[in-house]
Amino acid sequence: MDLTTLAHTELSTRLAVLHDEHGRLKDRGLSLNLTRGKPAAEQLELSRPLLSLPGPDGHTAQDGTDGRNYGGLQGLPELRAAFSGPLQVPVDQLVAFGNSSLELMYECVVDAVLFGLPGAPAPWPREGRTAMLCPVPGYDRHFALCEKLGIDMIPVPMTADGPDMDEVERLVAEERVKGIWCVPKYSNPTGVCYAPETVRRLAAMETAAPDFRVFWDNAYAVHHVGEGAPLADVLSLSAEHGHPDRVFVFGSTSKITMAGSGVAFFGSSPANVSWLLGHFSKRTIGPDKINQLRHARFLPDAAAVRAHMERHAELLRPKFELIDAVLEKRLGDAGVASWTRPQGGYFVSLDVLDGCAARVVELAGDAGIALTPAGATFPHGKDPRDRNIRLAPSYPGLAEVGDAVEGLALCVELAAVERLLEAGRAA
Amino acid sequence: MDLTTLAHTELSTRLAVLHDEHGRLKDRGLSLNLTRGKPAAEQLELSRPLLSLPGPDGHTAQDGTDGRNYGGLQGLPELRAAFSGPLQVPVDQLVAFGNSSLELMYECVVDAVLFGLPGAPAPWPREGRTAMLCPVPGYDRHFALCEKLGIDMIPVPMTADGPDMDEVERLVAEERVKGIWCVPKYSNPTGVCYAPETVRRLAAMETAAPDFRVFWDNAYAVHHVGEGAPLADVLSLSAEHGHPDRVFVFGSTSKITMAGSGVAFFGSSPANVSWLLGHFSKRTIGPDKINQLRHARFLPDAAAVRAHMERHAELLRPKFELIDAVLEKRLGDAGVASWTRPQGGYFVSLDVLDGCAARVVELAGDAGIALTPAGATFPHGKDPRDRNIRLAPSYPGLAEVGDAVEGLALCVELAAVERLLEAGRAA
Repeated sequence: MDLTTLAHTELSTRLAVLHDEHGRLKDRGLSLNLTRGKPAAEQLELSRPLLSLPGPDGHTAQDGTDGRNYGGLQGLPELRAAFSGPLQVPVDQLVAFGNSSLELMYECVVDAVLFGLPGAPAPWPREGRTAMLCPVPGYDRHFALCEKLGIDMIPVPMTADGPDMDEVERLVAEERVKGIWCVPKYSNPTGVCYAPETVRRLAAMETAAPDFRVFWDNAYAVHHVGEGAPLADVLSLSAEHGHPDRVFVFGSTSKITMAGSGVAFFGSSPANVSWLLGHFSKRTIGPDKINQLRHARFLPDAAAVRAHMERHAELLRPKFELIDAVLEKRLGDAGVASWTRPQGGYFVSLDVLDGCAARVVELAGDAGIALTPAGATFPHGKDPRDRNIRLAPSYPGLAEVGDAVEGLALCVELAAVERLLEAGRAA
Repeated sequence: MDLTTLAHTELSTRLAVLHDEHGRLKDRGLSLNLTRGKPAAEQLELSRPLLSLPGPDGHTAQDGTDGRNYGGLQGLPELRAAFSGPLQVPVDQLVAFGNSSLELMYECVVDAVLFGLPGAPAPWPREGRTAMLCPVPGYDRHFALCEKLGIDMIPVPMTADGPDMDEVERLVAEERVKGIWCVPKYSNPTGVCYAPETVRRLAAMETAAPDFRVFWDNAYAVHHVGEGAPLADVLSLSAEHGHPDRVFVFGSTSKITMAGSGVAFFGSSPANVSWLLGHFSKRTIGPDKINQLRHARFLPDAAAVRAHMERHAELLRPKFELIDAVLEKRLGDAGVASWTRPQGGYFVSLDVLDGCAARVVELAGDAGIALTPAGATFPHGKDPRDRNIRLAPSYPGLAEVGDAVEGLALCVELAAVERLLEAGRAA
């Protein structure tokens, strides 16, 4: 039943039915949660061997380094070798550092602000005269980082092929535009994989700022749930197009091994790697090499990473399929919602009728179903159309996902009917 | 033989003897190193159980937290409880984060520059209008951090009781003076333990800057080699004297467990802790809690830490004793050198005749004995009297320490005789 074609009386009847249904849902006293973009316990179990690694005699790296002592700023070569392929970065241009790729992104922006980038005439100006392009919907922590460090944010619409490149090329003609946030594979939250032509244009475009950077947050590089999608090699393409220093690649094992105890990566041109390590050399003596050894023993090469990720996919796939099935059953022909069917990553992006997202989140919350706040996927938490909701199915069990999405679908329909009635009255 | 009382001819004769001796030393083709302030392999062996911890079922914290997943920005309560006593910080005012206390110090200065401190009218100004007091000789990485972040450094002489407090109290009357670096226990490199009255004055003094901070780098809090020295509780004293936000305490297990794979700590007032965690919340999702669990299992309380550190002391004590014995035998009555006999920490501080330190390092280097560059213990690497040399005996074996210090003592005497002859000619 396409709700958008109903007459006023039909909508009123439907509203009463849905209100009753929502009342019964509330009476169930549910406590469900679709907000948490983190691995479930059974996913963490896949990495159980890490908890006993590297073992009593396992502290020596392949090159003889004693992993227990100080030093080794760039990270262990054998771990970098294992992730060089998955992250599409040559091993000597890859840095393994810390447990958080977000921290590496933050460092890059802070260092750009305090010291300036290779190829830059000066540090990024502070206090709002620098801007980054933010494909929307996008990752709230990218936006929070910009907000904190005084970087303006310019939203750019996402398409099925990645950010709208006509818009990107138009905007980078402004010198204050210094970068773009990209989650190029199974994007957060849309699941979009950047098309080869999108990647090529990002690598090739002329920018007014000589120190423009693509922040390539490849958080889901190997995190397929369906058919794996290929991704063009942005670092090589940038070099080929005469912009060797354009791209900062980020990645981590947070959603490969253990979310809080993984290893983060930074990859870039030799000049950018020297730049970052130069700054690091004054702030630390080196990363936790034992944790890197632990990871290198557990995931010694790209094939091991692939096999391991297939086991994650087996756990996640049913949850994604269930979301799609429930939404399709309840909202497939209602004309008031569309959603993504991602082939990887951690999220489903749900668009409801314009002006309804906050109301859906409220209705769901009333029924004990926690959803990510409406607007979270936009800069400053403001979705101008108030329509996008991010669903995170990884952490709860399958039954909880099913119950939560059933309830959510009801709330989507209820909010839509309320809205359509209101629009009818206004007309 | 007091070299400073010798006549010119006696000095010339002595010079020839020493030259011959130095020539024979060079002929031995030694390769010795006293520069590395890091634990020896046998010290790292003391923490071997960490390499298999927390074990296959060991990922759950006392409060039920799954250590493998995201979150827990302040660090695990049980690890903070274990180090609360040794670091003299209440457990709820202690943060356990990362593997490097230097990184936490760097963060504090960056956040002071970018955002400002609690109690501050504005961020620390950039570009040289902020200064920190630097007791000298001191820790080169503190100085490098200031240099990098554009903080001026004002040297303050160290006494046997800590920094010259008359000088400190005089200097903090300047508003641009925003902080002081302190290694209060077994100081780097002098081994000095701050006297109770020094700590009290640091806590009680009035400062022109309302956001003045004592950077209390308690790197050697539990690292005795002789009799342990008590240290006054600077955090409590500051609060008692009406300056609750004055002190940033730093510490780590780098020289307790494994140098690169330990846990770092930050302790301060509730306002300062909220301030730092507020900034952290935009740059990371949390520290490596599994490594914290590992440490909490291995060192569950202060008594375990104490027992463990006694085993370190047993390994380090002979090296410190040997340095003192060799220097005493060769230079005890020569009148051209003095050195510290630290009761803990990692260094011996050697003062030679003014104007001789760089020459001693050169002569030793010619004979295959690597010493820390002269001046390294002063801001910008410049020792105005060119007399201080930092000796680091922990890493080499006992025989290497003995050979290196024997050679060093010869070089000290040779440089002194050269200098005295030169002075005699000039007179």
